[in-house]
Amino acid sequence: MAEAAIDLNADLGEGFGRWSLTDDAALLSVVTSANVACGFHAGDPATMRRVCDLAAERGVRIGAQVSYRDLAGFGRRAMDVPADELAAEVAYQIGALEVFARAAGASVAYVKPHGALYNRVVDDAEQAAAVVAGVRLAGPLPVLGLPGSRLLAAAAREGLPVVHEAFADRAYTAAGTLVPRREPHAVVTDPGTVVSRSVGLARDGWVTAVTGQEVQVTPRSLCVHGDTPGASALAARVRRALEDAGLRVEAFA
Amino acid sequence: MAEAAIDLNADLGEGFGRWSLTDDAALLSVVTSANVACGFHAGDPATMRRVCDLAAERGVRIGAQVSYRDLAGFGRRAMDVPADELAAEVAYQIGALEVFARAAGASVAYVKPHGALYNRVVDDAEQAAAVVAGVRLAGPLPVLGLPGSRLLAAAAREGLPVVHEAFADRAYTAAGTLVPRREPHAVVTDPGTVVSRSVGLARDGWVTAVTGQEVQVTPRSLCVHGDTPGASALAARVRRALEDAGLRVEAFA
Amino acid sequence: MAEAAIDLNADLGEGFGRWSLTDDAALLSVVTSANVACGFHAGDPATMRRVCDLAAERGVRIGAQVSYRDLAGFGRRAMDVPADELAAEVAYQIGALEVFARAAGASVAYVKPHGALYNRVVDDAEQAAAVVAGVRLAGPLPVLGLPGSRLLAAAAREGLPVVHEAFADRAYTAAGTLVPRREPHAVVTDPGTVVSRSVGLARDGWVTAVTGQEVQVTPRSLCVHGDTPGASALAARVRRALEDAGLRVEAFA
Amino acid sequence: MAEAAIDLNADLGEGFGRWSLTDDAALLSVVTSANVACGFHAGDPATMRRVCDLAAERGVRIGAQVSYRDLAGFGRRAMDVPADELAAEVAYQIGALEVFARAAGASVAYVKPHGALYNRVVDDAEQAAAVVAGVRLAGPLPVLGLPGSRLLAAAAREGLPVVHEAFADRAYTAAGTLVPRREPHAVVTDPGTVVSRSVGLARDGWVTAVTGQEVQVTPRSLCVHGDTPGASALAARVRRALEDAGLRVEAFA
Repeated sequence: MAEAAIDLNADLGEGFGRWSLTDDAALLSVVTSANVACGFHAGDPATMRRVCDLAAERGVRIGAQVSYRDLAGFGRRAMDVPADELAAEVAYQIGALEVFARAAGASVAYVKPHGALYNRVVDDAEQAAAVVAGVRLAGPLPVLGLPGSRLLAAAAREGLPVVHEAFADRAYTAAGTLVPRREPHAVVTDPGTVVSRSVGLARDGWVTAVTGQEVQVTPRSLCVHGDTPGASALAARVRRALEDAGLRVEAFA
Repeated sequence: MAEAAIDLNADLGEGFGRWSLTDDAALLSVVTSANVACGFHAGDPATMRRVCDLAAERGVRIGAQVSYRDLAGFGRRAMDVPADELAAEVAYQIGALEVFARAAGASVAYVKPHGALYNRVVDDAEQAAAVVAGVRLAGPLPVLGLPGSRLLAAAAREGLPVVHEAFADRAYTAAGTLVPRREPHAVVTDPGTVVSRSVGLARDGWVTAVTGQEVQVTPRSLCVHGDTPGASALAARVRRALEDAGLRVEAFA
Repeated sequence: MAEAAIDLNADLGEGFGRWSLTDDAALLSVVTSANVACGFHAGDPATMRRVCDLAAERGVRIGAQVSYRDLAGFGRRAMDVPADELAAEVAYQIGALEVFARAAGASVAYVKPHGALYNRVVDDAEQAAAVVAGVRLAGPLPVLGLPGSRLLAAAAREGLPVVHEAFADRAYTAAGTLVPRREPHAVVTDPGTVVSRSVGLARDGWVTAVTGQEVQVTPRSLCVHGDTPGASALAARVRRALEDAGLRVEAFA
Repeated sequence: MAEAAIDLNADLGEGFGRWSLTDDAALLSVVTSANVACGFHAGDPATMRRVCDLAAERGVRIGAQVSYRDLAGFGRRAMDVPADELAAEVAYQIGALEVFARAAGASVAYVKPHGALYNRVVDDAEQAAAVVAGVRLAGPLPVLGLPGSRLLAAAAREGLPVVHEAFADRAYTAAGTLVPRREPHAVVTDPGTVVSRSVGLARDGWVTAVTGQEVQVTPRSLCVHGDTPGASALAARVRRALEDAGLRVEAFA
């Protein structure tokens, strides 16, 4: 059985200068944890400041969404970054965000890797260790990630709190891992299904795999998306459904 | 009469990835304050970390050398950055450096603008105020700059400690300002003259202007350079001369 | 009396990686000249290629929209770039675009500076000369710009064809220059007024200044915008009105 | 038996703004082909122009040294760039260089990938095809690379001329491939050995593998390095030895 409280996290502040992407104001009315882009795949300093101010005002937890240095690829291109460089790059991003979180009367409360880095540290032990080393340089922050990932294993080994997350709009294998995006049916697009899977994951700790089995997944946080039209409306619907199911929607401790 | 203690500051960590520039190890044996590049004109995260570790180990004060975002121009091209963007960019850089300073058991102890930004905030009240706003976002840090500059005026007005610096290798006008680099004789190249001017500035609070008059300049810090061949050797010679003249070479409080 | 043929130009391809801005497909159905962003303020290589392919397919002229190197500021922050660097940066951008234009069976047919560079070379003779030097490095291309600007004067002096452009959605002074954006009423927002001013400029060579006088402005090209909601629809309306007024809407020779 | 003519190629223009790396002037007195950095891992426009001017003046062939977009990692970090993006990025770089080559009275005569991209396209068929697609967008240019690589296979398949190169300062396996840099003895550091291996490769078409066997390698071009102290002096010594051995040192056709 899953926990009675569930966190909702979303990527925010993913514009850069003239360009915007995520509907930050709308999402900050829905989520309890904001993964704020820190300038390496998206997120200029003025945007980071604005998002931190708004998040603090609404009582939303601020997390550092750290990434490979890749504006042109939006952090979606895996990179063979040497461990010491990667650790320093992770720490750099957390530190930069901390200034804006603190100025808003809050602090960086957790770290979540973005895009290709998120996927890479599921299996790559060296980069997982480098990310954890970077987090520890910045402070003993909780790490938000995929259950079973090398990242969370490395974080736990180094004494960092780990937070399991799940994705209601992604297909799962029978083994409880995500179906890769390049495969068919990797993404769940029907809004009603996303909502019901959200409740299933958060309340019951089960999700139906792409192969039909029921798989146990017990997340403390659900990731919702806000970078496509209608996405923040769907996120709001997920939140209402969770509350209607009797769950407390609140940030992890 | 000048103070009996003088700080020596130098720009450090001004490489980027494969490229190096400043002789960091040599300079850290000479100076008492390290202006560490924060990634906007130079300074990748791994270099920032290395310089902070070495500075902390040698008891050298760590400062944030903040810049316009301009790797291609090394921060030497003035930019019309809107005030809110500039403030956020300054804060971002300080925060990023703070992580590495803290991990080394130290902290960011002051802020000094670099290159074109340094020159711009001598006269530009709006950008001076923006830099100060950025510093205040990051914390009430001392600001190192040119006496008489808009920057130090704005910092003082906002309650930040200000530290006056002087340049033994730059020509001064009769008004006590720097002769612009584009003018002839703007830079003092003779090592002996640089050494004697250092002592004159630090001990006596006077320097000979390019027009021949004696001008009163009473710095708490002298800036030495380390990005050209022989520069760190000259910096060492300056330090010895200051000590021989009975001055305490130590960081400002 | 103005010319009987009028060109419509618009900025295109102003996304970068994950981010998009301009409605390229819609605009390419309206304009006769496409100012394609070349990677310095916007415009990644894949986007440049896509826009060139589409422009060539629709018979739209391709121009290089050259900019300061400033992704974070979208090229809207004036920069003191030394002349030799600026010339080389302009040539670099034109050359990069030429590959995609040529691969599409076309070629770069003109050059137009973007944003802060466009504004700077109205008055700054040194940067105007540098832009022209950069154009000449790349080839003797026509330069599209503001009548009376230093840029067009420098281009003409160096033997480059010059093309006068006007803005139906910008206010003019009695002297025939643009009212700076920071002043009130600088931008004409009423669609009907934009349409009627377009016809007035293109057919009659006159526009009503912000102070009420009729000012003579005889453009060979009108700039329309496509980076805001409804903008490409307005551009289409302008085109129809020009055609209804008996003007040939076609690219300059 | 190897060919009687041998080309010497070296990476040039690998500085960026304030930073320099390669001893361009010295190398241009030695090599017959200059792999000019195009701005993605190194090489600002002003440097590209300067190197092209000097190369043309000395009759040195100009090649585009194309790279992943990675200034911070100097192009040494492998990246999973989607094929269409990579092709466009390669074409962009070639086009940018072409402007400076042409302005110097020359043209881009070949393409050689840099660093991690060079290594990746030895085995990665998809990226190899993308690089070749990028070259073809820019024009039917020869491709310089490792014999047996996927890159040269893809280039040949697409009708592009291919040029085999060898490295006198790198260890070879018995299969004729390079020993990866991370393995011991991967780099030959003794100058005398580098010189004798150069002659062996160029005149005889044989090199001693790290395991002792003689391996046949028949390069049309030898790569020499110029980014470390003494490197350009060694390159000059290699050239003299090749000439003394009766070889013509000249660019490939």
